[in-house]
Amino acid sequence: MESVNLADKLRQFDETWTPKVVAALNGQLVKLAKLEGAFLWHDHAEEDELFLVISGRLRLEMREGDVELGPGELFVVPRGVEHRPVALPTAEVLLFEPASTAHTGDVVSDRTVSDLEWI
Amino acid sequence: MESVNLADKLRQFDETWTPKVVAALNGQLVKLAKLEGAFLWHDHAEEDELFLVISGRLRLEMREGDVELGPGELFVVPRGVEHRPVALPTAEVLLFEPASTAHTGDVVSDRTVSDLEWI
Repeated sequence: MESVNLADKLRQFDETWTPKVVAALNGQLVKLAKLEGAFLWHDHAEEDELFLVISGRLRLEMREGDVELGPGELFVVPRGVEHRPVALPTAEVLLFEPASTAHTGDVVSDRTVSDLEWI
Repeated sequence: MESVNLADKLRQFDETWTPKVVAALNGQLVKLAKLEGAFLWHDHAEEDELFLVISGRLRLEMREGDVELGPGELFVVPRGVEHRPVALPTAEVLLFEPASTAHTGDVVSDRTVSDLEWI
């Protein structure tokens, strides 16, 4: 019966590009992440991915055009759409995606976090 | 390639207890709702339901105990758990739930909205 305070959770970690799980429902996870600068181009073949910006600014670069998000703005990257998140210069975001989603998609790099931590 | 600005969307309607859909992903919907006072007791047998408070204050009454949420706080009501949302006295909330979820659960009343509007 514990509620989740997003600001409290965000104070619990500093690492960038390392999503932390804060809630699960219906096979989906709610994650928080701190972003800085540019991530890598990737896609998720089977999964749509929602980005909701809590603070800062985020550009989602896509081959068909970019979307820029500020606090209180969200965007769903459809499955199969290659994207590169770029924080301008930093952002705190809430992610909503299936429990099966790896944050680097089909690209495995040294930035891939395979064991997601719950906070 | 349209982003969703939550404040802009919330300005587009006044009705209470009438969730509006703002995004869809992976068979789930993201909805916004304006709440005032008490709703009815209900549950969703097969679906977990996430409430994220954007403004105002919300008490989720449950048989095992209540949870109170302010802005930036979220709670997942697990499937099968009877609950009654009570805004104190008003709240704006974001909901994440499967596309199949009726907001009054298995209880059909004159407050059940069956055709959800996209905004």
